[in-house]
Amino acid sequence: MITIRDVARQAGVSVATVSRVLNNSTLVSPETRDAVMSAVSDLGYRPNANAQALATQASDTIGVVVMDVSDAFFGALVKAVDIVAQQNQKYLLIGNSYHEAEKERNAIEVLIRQRCSALIVHSKALSDSELSEFLQHIPGMVLINRIVPGFAHRCVCLDNISGAQMATKMLLNHGHRRIGYLGSSHSIEDDEMRKTGWLQALEEYDIVPPESWVGVGSPDLQGGEAAMVELLGRNSGLTAVFAYNDSMAAGALTALKDNGIAVPQHLSLIAFDDIPLARYTDPQLTTVRYPIASMAKLATELALLGAAGKLDRNATHCFMPTLVRRHSVAQRQTVGPITNL
Amino acid sequence: MITIRDVARQAGVSVATVSRVLNNSTLVSPETRDAVMSAVSDLGYRPNANAQALATQASDTIGVVVMDVSDAFFGALVKAVDIVAQQNQKYLLIGNSYHEAEKERNAIEVLIRQRCSALIVHSKALSDSELSEFLQHIPGMVLINRIVPGFAHRCVCLDNISGAQMATKMLLNHGHRRIGYLGSSHSIEDDEMRKTGWLQALEEYDIVPPESWVGVGSPDLQGGEAAMVELLGRNSGLTAVFAYNDSMAAGALTALKDNGIAVPQHLSLIAFDDIPLARYTDPQLTTVRYPIASMAKLATELALLGAAGKLDRNATHCFMPTLVRRHSVAQRQTVGPITNL
Repeated sequence: MITIRDVARQAGVSVATVSRVLNNSTLVSPETRDAVMSAVSDLGYRPNANAQALATQASDTIGVVVMDVSDAFFGALVKAVDIVAQQNQKYLLIGNSYHEAEKERNAIEVLIRQRCSALIVHSKALSDSELSEFLQHIPGMVLINRIVPGFAHRCVCLDNISGAQMATKMLLNHGHRRIGYLGSSHSIEDDEMRKTGWLQALEEYDIVPPESWVGVGSPDLQGGEAAMVELLGRNSGLTAVFAYNDSMAAGALTALKDNGIAVPQHLSLIAFDDIPLARYTDPQLTTVRYPIASMAKLATELALLGAAGKLDRNATHCFMPTLVRRHSVAQRQTVGPITNL
Repeated sequence: MITIRDVARQAGVSVATVSRVLNNSTLVSPETRDAVMSAVSDLGYRPNANAQALATQASDTIGVVVMDVSDAFFGALVKAVDIVAQQNQKYLLIGNSYHEAEKERNAIEVLIRQRCSALIVHSKALSDSELSEFLQHIPGMVLINRIVPGFAHRCVCLDNISGAQMATKMLLNHGHRRIGYLGSSHSIEDDEMRKTGWLQALEEYDIVPPESWVGVGSPDLQGGEAAMVELLGRNSGLTAVFAYNDSMAAGALTALKDNGIAVPQHLSLIAFDDIPLARYTDPQLTTVRYPIASMAKLATELALLGAAGKLDRNATHCFMPTLVRRHSVAQRQTVGPITNL
């Protein structure tokens, strides 16, 4: 790595002189400036962002912590943050947390040490009290998809329970009563909340689902396929399934096709998130839309305001999901073939 | 942001003393150490990574530049880099380049200024000479999916032409002669190379495809759907299509279904990349496997070696793609319904 010392040596001047030239000081002769600038260009020297950050106590990077950037949902989140970052001439520093407390904590600590001016964190594994401590010390830190008491104005969240109720009610309104749930094996709040919404909607119809109506898998294509296979093996007479997310539902579709069960004719399926894939499955997925791009955009704007000390402490930022009706839900058949569900 | 000055003030000592405590100097009394450490903990002070990087001329971040992290292919690339990074106690700084020269240049410059010790770059828009200059100055920089003359030992690439030939030959071996190409609208080398492989394979059968056999769209689900619709509208009598990537092929499947064209019975489809989605389409995609995780892993290891000045200058790193046979390719029907392709 070329340093300011190399430039000074090449130009035959002191480090202080190089620094004066690079900072556009007027205390430099035109000849010295030329000598320094040609050394800079010959050597390919670049001013050190760490030195600049140290001098100004700020940096041109925005930090983002997500579960896994290779997941379509988090990819969309990061992309939305990047768009706001670019508009503000900032660059992204991304940390993957894999929903593990140790890695979440590490990722946040590293971004803070890199002096990110703003920090958007999708934290699921750390406790409220640990997050509170971070939030207290870092005014530009904003949480997405989580509410920490006392910091609601710096939390952007979605009403997961209402979304799950919406999905389950749609199935109930189509005559379904035996409605299963494909849940995530990650121990995160979202899964609990979506399961709660499903339970609450069923409760209004006096339905108390047995545990055998719940299949669990990783929140991706493979996990959805495996969880659906698990449900199919239990012969619970389900006519509809609510899936934790679109990826799991898309995986479930594969399992159902392999077993000759037509969606929505034999089984209705409804999902959550509305990632682009939801429009490209067969049938297209009816799903609950998670406006992650809008939420990530707002979170980034709040983080930049927070870093500048300009946040409104009384605002709250809770989004409502909406139902997107496509082709994976149909009226329950009261006659016709009974599937092995 | 809490600075070392705040800690010194709170502890009632000088900045130099705080620095000595934080650097575990022995020239500090136990009482002073306790006072400083309790000020550090009260204020939530964190040692500044920029200051540390400045002192050591290194950083604990690895930089990655990709087209768009929300794309499944690049998500897989970034994840593979992250795995190696974690094994080496490094953290990722990711820049999106969107295949635009200006943004690619910017992303690389920013990562260099952040003093990333290693840099993995998927650059498609910048010229060889501009990349050469970067490579010359930054020994820890490695290119993925691109060869810059003179820097082959720091380029990890895939033989795209052979991959496309493989795919097209498989279709030819199944009796197909009228084979279309679904290309990417991004002006990148990969598309040119895959198109070249397709042309070369057809040439062996004396087939010179007219431009009407080529449909073009963005390299994602939507682009594949649009490009397939375009091809369908031309009635070119195609019985098979080679798609630039899996996402485009998955989008094409939707367009074909909407038009009542069964895959592979009426039309064979073969793709490129083998992202997880390829196993979850209906039918599952026959595709050319791009070993992006292995390649990204190697690129990261090379970048770390390069940063440490330990690279073998005579090695080359070209990967061969492999064919993954699933269910989207069938023998050409010589009788039976003619589609409107």
